[in-house]
Amino acid sequence: MGDAPLLKLSGERFRAVYHLSGTREESLAWARDICIEQTVEYPEDLITRQDIREQIFGRIASFEPVGSERFEATIEFPIEAAGQELPQLLNVLFGNISIKPGYRLVRFELPESLLRHFRGPRFGRQGLRDLLNVHDRPLLSTAIKPMGLSPRELAEFAYQFALGGIDLIKDDHGLADQSFCRFEERVRLLSDAVNRANGETGLRCLYVPNVTAPVDQIVDRAHRAREAGAGGCLISPGLVGLDAMRQIADDDRVGLPIMSHPALMGSFTMSATAGIAHGALYGRISRLAGADAVIFPNYGGRFCFSEEQCRDIIDGTTSAMGAISPIFPAPAGGMKVSRVPELCRFYGKDSVLLIGGDLHRQGPDLAENCRRFARLVQEQP
Amino acid sequence: MGDAPLLKLSGERFRAVYHLSGTREESLAWARDICIEQTVEYPEDLITRQDIREQIFGRIASFEPVGSERFEATIEFPIEAAGQELPQLLNVLFGNISIKPGYRLVRFELPESLLRHFRGPRFGRQGLRDLLNVHDRPLLSTAIKPMGLSPRELAEFAYQFALGGIDLIKDDHGLADQSFCRFEERVRLLSDAVNRANGETGLRCLYVPNVTAPVDQIVDRAHRAREAGAGGCLISPGLVGLDAMRQIADDDRVGLPIMSHPALMGSFTMSATAGIAHGALYGRISRLAGADAVIFPNYGGRFCFSEEQCRDIIDGTTSAMGAISPIFPAPAGGMKVSRVPELCRFYGKDSVLLIGGDLHRQGPDLAENCRRFARLVQEQP
Repeated sequence: MGDAPLLKLSGERFRAVYHLSGTREESLAWARDICIEQTVEYPEDLITRQDIREQIFGRIASFEPVGSERFEATIEFPIEAAGQELPQLLNVLFGNISIKPGYRLVRFELPESLLRHFRGPRFGRQGLRDLLNVHDRPLLSTAIKPMGLSPRELAEFAYQFALGGIDLIKDDHGLADQSFCRFEERVRLLSDAVNRANGETGLRCLYVPNVTAPVDQIVDRAHRAREAGAGGCLISPGLVGLDAMRQIADDDRVGLPIMSHPALMGSFTMSATAGIAHGALYGRISRLAGADAVIFPNYGGRFCFSEEQCRDIIDGTTSAMGAISPIFPAPAGGMKVSRVPELCRFYGKDSVLLIGGDLHRQGPDLAENCRRFARLVQEQP
Repeated sequence: MGDAPLLKLSGERFRAVYHLSGTREESLAWARDICIEQTVEYPEDLITRQDIREQIFGRIASFEPVGSERFEATIEFPIEAAGQELPQLLNVLFGNISIKPGYRLVRFELPESLLRHFRGPRFGRQGLRDLLNVHDRPLLSTAIKPMGLSPRELAEFAYQFALGGIDLIKDDHGLADQSFCRFEERVRLLSDAVNRANGETGLRCLYVPNVTAPVDQIVDRAHRAREAGAGGCLISPGLVGLDAMRQIADDDRVGLPIMSHPALMGSFTMSATAGIAHGALYGRISRLAGADAVIFPNYGGRFCFSEEQCRDIIDGTTSAMGAISPIFPAPAGGMKVSRVPELCRFYGKDSVLLIGGDLHRQGPDLAENCRRFARLVQEQP
């Protein structure tokens, strides 16, 4: 490795912020470890090439305590290490160190030179509001379920939801392409049902089918959704990879807003001292990967997110990211209509309120239940 | 939901085993919750259709204590819920409940009727041994690094490794398609270097480039790897999704053995009371998704897996799964040549021993360092 041609990188860096949960000495060693593990992954003392040490190694920009046995380290990586690709960016941010206890990715900041390789959400908050022509309130959403009903039965639900004024009617994330509920038939019948209701109401409700599928079929399902008249795509990046969502968002032949579902992503945020912080995962990373609305479990539902974690998500959906648009936080998970006033206070107008089962509980007239939900949202200050 | 046509599913079920970490009362409630959350995801009391309750709901097959405040629940799901697709199978096994603390997926068993939709590894242990013509010892592997070297410099390393008798030379998982080390040039030069060394040694060393990439480029990179004369593909399913690995394994135009890298998968196994057990993730799930060898951090290296967790992985790579072949466990992560006798005792002959940086530390003659590694492995009983 002596007389080789020297590296000539741009010198531009992106920054990642980690929380390290150990003693000061341990945490500082871990910060240094990130610089090596996430780049060269090679014994530091064996690297004598000065250009690699200076241009490839991560660099500690700051290191300070943020709690008892908890330190915040900001590490700067060369933009070239991320290779202009989302999977490799994720790899540099948290690939190998995901396997080490005590390391948590809490934030990251990309310079314009790296951000410009990512389109992010095709619509974002403003674009989705324009599509729906809803500008002054939270968006209303519900889910098509339960699994086991036929496409025809589910289409009747969708029709009632759309009549009742729901903005975004998404498939349950468990509706794939099962023998008892084929994707093709479901997308056709539910798109027709929602569009028929729109003809009656004058509203622009969007049906958002689940296109999560084997990776070689996702694009095709999204195209078929578009052709059938669907209004968006639901995808679970935990099941098929964040870049699969990015691919659908970038596809001009799809051209539909994307709702992201958190299935199989729970492990990332499970530990307070490891994994990826809620705002980074459901906010910044999901935006970068093209979500227009990101579904996550609301605090106080049947999952376990705290108010603080939900606030971190709101922040991640809207904090500055160059030309990458802000997106909608879509709290969900056993939410009840009775909680609407509280949810509106907490999330504000720029949110998607996703209520599933509880809409069925309000009485036999689904459309009327939705209207009550809509009125309650509209009454909020 | 009254006079609808009744569901007529096969009645066949697959089984998933969970560890639930709570009191007996809590854990039993959670077991019941899995039956609902992972299927209909709908308030149970609102489902009056008997066919859905009987045919779609998960079913508790057993529930028993396995430790203090730890219970093992076996849940049976209808095979049709998994829809013959890996993403949806993962969704039923652990989608939403990944977000709930206290739920851990530890095992699963699929009947032949579901397994037959998955090819699994194209080669498996026997197939990879046949390719390499190595039948009586652990396979030897190393990594091409550090990031920052040019393809020409890395090719010289690869040549020396192959001369020295390494079986599987894989790219570091951080080598993607960066400006300073393009995929195309790297794959061409390193394939040539390894094949040239094979011509001299008479061995069949395989170069395994990293094809982890934006999802719409993975297949193309794998095809180009094949055309350039590479001998395998490395992929990080944590970065691009498990089904992307499955796609490459299933692709007849690729037709190469797959090594799976654990980048970004650490959060799944981080908590003892949540996530997915080591043997299920790195064993059964990775096999189902087409890996022929699965890389994971060895116990006692710079990561944190225990001996017991590594044993669980070994078990997962080889336990009965119908026609799905056993695959190689490939312990890695700061392993030293001096540990070879211990590693051979622990992992036995059916393993891939992956030693990276330490091979560079043994002296300036890389090929000779590899020969020493190979001799040490061959000397083990």
